Amino acid sequence: MTKLSAGIIIIGNEVLSGRTQDTNSNFIAKNLIKSGIDLKEIIVIQDDEDIIIDTVRQFSQKYTYVFTTGGIGPTHDDITSESLAKAFNKKYDFHPEAYKILEDYYPDGEFNEGRKKMAKMPSEVKLIQNPITAAPGFKILNVFVLPGVPEIMQKMFLQVLEKIEKGSPKKIITLKTNLYESTISLMLSDIQKKYSKSSIGSYPYFNFATKKAGVNIVISSWTLESLDEIVIEIQNLISLKGGKSSIV
Amino acid sequence: MTKLSAGIIIIGNEVLSGRTQDTNSNFIAKNLIKSGIDLKEIIVIQDDEDIIIDTVRQFSQKYTYVFTTGGIGPTHDDITSESLAKAFNKKYDFHPEAYKILEDYYPDGEFNEGRKKMAKMPSEVKLIQNPITAAPGFKILNVFVLPGVPEIMQKMFLQVLEKIEKGSPKKIITLKTNLYESTISLMLSDIQKKYSKSSIGSYPYFNFATKKAGVNIVISSWTLESLDEIVIEIQNLISLKGGKSSIV
Repeated sequence: MTKLSAGIIIIGNEVLSGRTQDTNSNFIAKNLIKSGIDLKEIIVIQDDEDIIIDTVRQFSQKYTYVFTTGGIGPTHDDITSESLAKAFNKKYDFHPEAYKILEDYYPDGEFNEGRKKMAKMPSEVKLIQNPITAAPGFKILNVFVLPGVPEIMQKMFLQVLEKIEKGSPKKIITLKTNLYESTISLMLSDIQKKYSKSSIGSYPYFNFATKKAGVNIVISSWTLESLDEIVIEIQNLISLKGGKSSIV
Repeated sequence: MTKLSAGIIIIGNEVLSGRTQDTNSNFIAKNLIKSGIDLKEIIVIQDDEDIIIDTVRQFSQKYTYVFTTGGIGPTHDDITSESLAKAFNKKYDFHPEAYKILEDYYPDGEFNEGRKKMAKMPSEVKLIQNPITAAPGFKILNVFVLPGVPEIMQKMFLQVLEKIEKGSPKKIITLKTNLYESTISLMLSDIQKKYSKSSIGSYPYFNFATKKAGVNIVISSWTLESLDEIVIEIQNLISLKGGKSSIV
């Protein structure tokens, strides 16, 4: 097991209402696993101060890194920054560097009240630069506060990822077979017991067009040097049961 | 505010690893809001018994309805049903009706151990029929236990939705404008304060191809008879600021 863990907090009524399909957590998840950081939990919560405060405090205690997305724009429903200040008992005021960045970015006379709000942050945070629309995110303790717009979030997250401590990527091999999950389930379970440092997951697939079905077997490990032994054992099991398999 | 609330628990290492983009929660969310049920929280957790037990107990207490997806297949990593039994102090054993359904579904000699496992459930549950691959889900207290495969989950969820108590759908109108969020943010905030029974959210959009930007303003309410007054007020505000708007 990697010693680095993470949690994601999606702050967004628009996700809970079904208006928006969250894709931010999937983008972050894919990058974390490659970076040797074990994503333990994703939560989508309402734009509600008390809930944000509670959730952020809990996650900050439980995980090495916490990533929040959403709620740092200029409008009244953007309450992430102020809630974070309250969560960690910091003042909520203009961040001089953020203020300067935004003042420089907007033409004269267009740095209005709404835009100024985006420079208000908990005190003593470290900024996360926004290469697209200038308004920065920030890091407070182990919490990285990012915007909700995917194109911007992605660029800012990748910047963060470059700078933080990473571990060894999780080793993952996916075996696809035409056998049904239930045909191999018991023997897979035995193999899992034998290799307790790995995790063997099985994910059935159905193609409704071709009527083909089967299962993807995902063998993964944070610690094993090699997964080859396990893969060969599962391939042999599949052959024995008259099935076909390929690494995908 | 509707008195009916809901929470979704996605049980799935495959979502946390980034292998799978969860779409189940978005499907459920869209249908809940139309059914007058207020989705408060979505959580993605690991395939871990203690975590499943804790989360399910908490959600079951907090919300009118809880929906879980994933982890009810035939393999060793499918631990949802057994965890639910433990969460609610029920026996975990073969459900006679589920056993019969699966026995009838599979040809002679093919109802193997893995498949039999899918008939094991907490005692005294009510089945949720699976019209595609037979293996049923179930309802225990206020928790609806559904599979992870989206095509199957969707059909089973819609069956559940037909039967449970629903409220009045949330009224929602989306106004799209070419103005920047920050241009209207302060006045939107005033309008929000005036109409406290509604919720006014603003979601900026950027089209990187056309370089067009602006904001979608989502006005919604569980209780107001009509949103027209608010919409007209916001449209007037947009005109006043020299912007265009349309209901989308």
